[in-house]
Amino acid sequence: MKRIGILTSGGDASGMNAAVRATVRKGLSMGMEVYAIDRGFEGLLDGNIEKMQWHSVGDILQRGGTILRTARSERFRTEEGQERAVSVLDTFGIEGVVVIGGDGSFRGGMELSRRGVHVMGIPGTIDNDLAYTDYTIGFDTAVNTVLAMISNIRDTSSAHERTSIIEVMGRHCGDIALHAGLAGGADDILIPEIELDINRACRRILRGQQSGKRHSIIIKAEGVPVSTAELRDIIEERTGQETRAVVPGHIQRGGTPSRQDRVLASLMGAKAAELLYDDEESKAIGITGGEIRACGLEEALQMKREFNPMLYDLAETLA
Amino acid sequence: MKRIGILTSGGDASGMNAAVRATVRKGLSMGMEVYAIDRGFEGLLDGNIEKMQWHSVGDILQRGGTILRTARSERFRTEEGQERAVSVLDTFGIEGVVVIGGDGSFRGGMELSRRGVHVMGIPGTIDNDLAYTDYTIGFDTAVNTVLAMISNIRDTSSAHERTSIIEVMGRHCGDIALHAGLAGGADDILIPEIELDINRACRRILRGQQSGKRHSIIIKAEGVPVSTAELRDIIEERTGQETRAVVPGHIQRGGTPSRQDRVLASLMGAKAAELLYDDEESKAIGITGGEIRACGLEEALQMKREFNPMLYDLAETLA
Amino acid sequence: MKRIGILTSGGDASGMNAAVRATVRKGLSMGMEVYAIDRGFEGLLDGNIEKMQWHSVGDILQRGGTILRTARSERFRTEEGQERAVSVLDTFGIEGVVVIGGDGSFRGGMELSRRGVHVMGIPGTIDNDLAYTDYTIGFDTAVNTVLAMISNIRDTSSAHERTSIIEVMGRHCGDIALHAGLAGGADDILIPEIELDINRACRRILRGQQSGKRHSIIIKAEGVPVSTAELRDIIEERTGQETRAVVPGHIQRGGTPSRQDRVLASLMGAKAAELLYDDEESKAIGITGGEIRACGLEEALQMKREFNPMLYDLAETLA
Amino acid sequence: MKRIGILTSGGDASGMNAAVRATVRKGLSMGMEVYAIDRGFEGLLDGNIEKMQWHSVGDILQRGGTILRTARSERFRTEEGQERAVSVLDTFGIEGVVVIGGDGSFRGGMELSRRGVHVMGIPGTIDNDLAYTDYTIGFDTAVNTVLAMISNIRDTSSAHERTSIIEVMGRHCGDIALHAGLAGGADDILIPEIELDINRACRRILRGQQSGKRHSIIIKAEGVPVSTAELRDIIEERTGQETRAVVPGHIQRGGTPSRQDRVLASLMGAKAAELLYDDEESKAIGITGGEIRACGLEEALQMKREFNPMLYDLAETLA
Repeated sequence: MKRIGILTSGGDASGMNAAVRATVRKGLSMGMEVYAIDRGFEGLLDGNIEKMQWHSVGDILQRGGTILRTARSERFRTEEGQERAVSVLDTFGIEGVVVIGGDGSFRGGMELSRRGVHVMGIPGTIDNDLAYTDYTIGFDTAVNTVLAMISNIRDTSSAHERTSIIEVMGRHCGDIALHAGLAGGADDILIPEIELDINRACRRILRGQQSGKRHSIIIKAEGVPVSTAELRDIIEERTGQETRAVVPGHIQRGGTPSRQDRVLASLMGAKAAELLYDDEESKAIGITGGEIRACGLEEALQMKREFNPMLYDLAETLA
Repeated sequence: MKRIGILTSGGDASGMNAAVRATVRKGLSMGMEVYAIDRGFEGLLDGNIEKMQWHSVGDILQRGGTILRTARSERFRTEEGQERAVSVLDTFGIEGVVVIGGDGSFRGGMELSRRGVHVMGIPGTIDNDLAYTDYTIGFDTAVNTVLAMISNIRDTSSAHERTSIIEVMGRHCGDIALHAGLAGGADDILIPEIELDINRACRRILRGQQSGKRHSIIIKAEGVPVSTAELRDIIEERTGQETRAVVPGHIQRGGTPSRQDRVLASLMGAKAAELLYDDEESKAIGITGGEIRACGLEEALQMKREFNPMLYDLAETLA
Repeated sequence: MKRIGILTSGGDASGMNAAVRATVRKGLSMGMEVYAIDRGFEGLLDGNIEKMQWHSVGDILQRGGTILRTARSERFRTEEGQERAVSVLDTFGIEGVVVIGGDGSFRGGMELSRRGVHVMGIPGTIDNDLAYTDYTIGFDTAVNTVLAMISNIRDTSSAHERTSIIEVMGRHCGDIALHAGLAGGADDILIPEIELDINRACRRILRGQQSGKRHSIIIKAEGVPVSTAELRDIIEERTGQETRAVVPGHIQRGGTPSRQDRVLASLMGAKAAELLYDDEESKAIGITGGEIRACGLEEALQMKREFNPMLYDLAETLA
Repeated sequence: MKRIGILTSGGDASGMNAAVRATVRKGLSMGMEVYAIDRGFEGLLDGNIEKMQWHSVGDILQRGGTILRTARSERFRTEEGQERAVSVLDTFGIEGVVVIGGDGSFRGGMELSRRGVHVMGIPGTIDNDLAYTDYTIGFDTAVNTVLAMISNIRDTSSAHERTSIIEVMGRHCGDIALHAGLAGGADDILIPEIELDINRACRRILRGQQSGKRHSIIIKAEGVPVSTAELRDIIEERTGQETRAVVPGHIQRGGTPSRQDRVLASLMGAKAAELLYDDEESKAIGITGGEIRACGLEEALQMKREFNPMLYDLAETLA
């Protein structure tokens, strides 16, 4: 393959820029032309496409967000839009596209793939919710950001002897909550994968109080089926301890990417360029068992995430 | 004076521990005995009072929150409670008390002062809302924390070309919003001191869009008379740009204190010990014109904060 | 096993406290008694041993360094010392010991193991230089710290159009340099595993200048056989660009541990407690292929680290 | 005045970009044309001058270093060079120049001023060594950076029970050492303004050991007349405690500027634009007594810095 494109789509994630840089420079180093597609599938439809040089991706490795921007595209959801997208790619002579994003972005990529474009998916989402890979780009940074928040919250919760609930991102996947809760020493962790049991959370808070703890911290993933405000009220009532909730929201995105996210993104970005150079069929690039691996894009989308309770159980044991 | 007490009260603020350390060690170095009163006026009523040694305040300078804890006290609001508090101090032989906190804490201190206790107020509150001092302890750290959040929000807002509203602390005083907005390059700043004009905010967002900005950031103090959710809806509707809101809440408290807060707290804590050593009447310690100064505690409470529009105007000019 | 001990030894690493917490609480939760041995093998000889409670390891998860302290022990290097150590353990009724540290600490553990003590080694060293495990505790945090430094250095190098050399830790293993260099976008990386070629570094700097880069950054591991001062002089002379060197030294240790180090440490600490509970023979606990695994302690020490040039080549390609 | 220039010179300092932004935008908002002079006086001689737009200074407020770059200029030291510089400014029609830098940069500015150019000096240097202003831009950020390093060093020093010496920037002025030492709880602070007394430092370390401290930290300014290596040897020998030294060097520059530096830089940058707009004579802009003030540029250069021992004495008392 001689000419490839790259886009970012869906929610942004720290490390996306490192992946863009890796694909662009690896591609250039192998003699390919690399085109940046601005604003995801929407920009593709608009022909917002620009040829990248080596220096085009300078000074971005350490930046959060994505220089390629991202956007929702209603137009691309239609068959007509998808066909138009392929025709735009044809116009530019682009034979393969690297799509950095989550589930929805990969589905978009599949639509291009079905129409003959070679698509390499790179998992860029803070949620870590893709079944085919152990880690997604942005997850590690997001959890480190939450850990810094927990540190602040611990100071003030301890001063006031309060319970604090922190609602973190994760609609269907509790991984941010799970890792932040284990690594942050939360008293209880509420995630979509485990049936909600508010009484258990209350028991753990009370047990902590009795053993002399000054404060309690509960981490809750946004996908847990109780509103954070309601949860706060119930916990305060049942434990008798003043309870506050905080929802850091989009602060969890962004921020300079961590070592893990930069290294992972660099490896995956380069791998995507190599696979396209070799004219490989559409694939999803992941990391499993500590190794960068690629599986069929469609296959990746069909895999179901299995919840491994090990970290959850460990967190509950150690809290 | 030979024997003094120290307590923290109201919302915690980063740097309180530095002030506690300074009062304790300065007091000890002058030959006084220093007693820590745990959990503010509530702990005073309960006699939660402990003699401090040099090492009692080791390794706390860099910690957020307050090792003395803080609590609300309904009992202390009554005349009976206040008299009991004085009698507890008598029992311990404590003649003077350092009170670290905000407005409400100083009013509590006044009640002790009226009953013969020498009280030195140290301004510990992130809101910077005390009229008699240019800076309160905790303010600088809180704004630095908000600036780090704005940095994250900017990454993601820029990737998605969104407007982001960040609601920061400040019920009656917009200083956190003002400094964070000026220093963070916010497109508009909404504070209680300036009449709310949502259309102005919308105009500034639209002007930014037209000049090619990828995103807009609005900083709003919590005391502004419109809910953040409502504001979000109005701005999104009027500007046509996707708008998100985030309320970092208690994350703004806590965190390791900044240089300014540690230095300020050390100076003020030492000053409080000196004033009590010299048997001075009750005073509020502040910083004005770059100098640590003390004025009468009652006088400090009666001063009205005047809003200086200079920073606000500058922020609007530069955004 | 009913009674176990835990010690940290060698250079401290961020996450050691998380491992201590995990071993202690997992051990207690299974009904064992857990004893903390203060100051490594030296403290063991001195009988500095204390029974741990649940709360003994509260509020340490987020702290760098090690609450158990660490020390060199000349006495323990002798046969006499080692026998005395075993007899101290006997006196306390401690049958198994968790040793958190690097190569040298594991060798110390082997001496206990040969005398009948069950020893579980947990890899705690920022250098990532143990052959039997993909990651050691403290490595990820150290690289993140170096990345923050590179960010500062980049600002000032760019302002002055300088070359900056950053000497990072790593006597025999270049992993900190390698990851920091790849993730930090260094122009060249000098590590002990790759033959020193100063001309290549100079060529890369000159190439960067010609393509319009304002500055260059070279990451050098301390084990590379040229002094950093000498390297600076040679590079400055050969490239004609002003060159500065910085040696952050022990700042690379310490600091609040990252997500990866806290999760890894928690998993490994718990695993060590489980293995001792099950009366397993001495083992080294590691992570390979994304899974926590244990191999024989002696076997672990005999494994030779193989250098995988993949990351190095990638870094050179992308810079 | 209708057309002004701006340059940064000398060592870079965090917040310079905020000052550049403020001058440019304030100038534009008053209807002036603002020209950026790249690479200080050297770039001025080369005519590296570019007209600035509103968006030219977008997204720089939060960046360390200086987008205008800085350089040494031998040519500008000569009378010939200075006359040429004035003639370049004439060619561009630039009547006034904002010079952001330290002592040496202001002297350069004086040479322009003597030849009829209106020069406004903004104090941009991390050293805080200008007599006419209480604070320089970059100082607060640099001390906060050093405080983060001390935090890391404390972790590891405590684990190993060591003394650590941290050499910070400051050739003639010990302010970074002084503030970092007070705010970081250093056991002793060595600055050029106080006569070197290594025995006092040793006594303080020994006193700390006797009172049960696990570690000691000594902050030394680079201008203190003993090499850090030598100091290390002496302290280790006299105290008998293992002693390590670290020289963070240029890491102290750079980094995202703090609230104080961004606010100060914004105020000063705007003030400089206003003064030029009003055709004021050459001035140095500073902050004294909490207020932005301007004094004659020559007068500012002639002022001698007086050392106020208050912070030093306080640090010694509280350590």
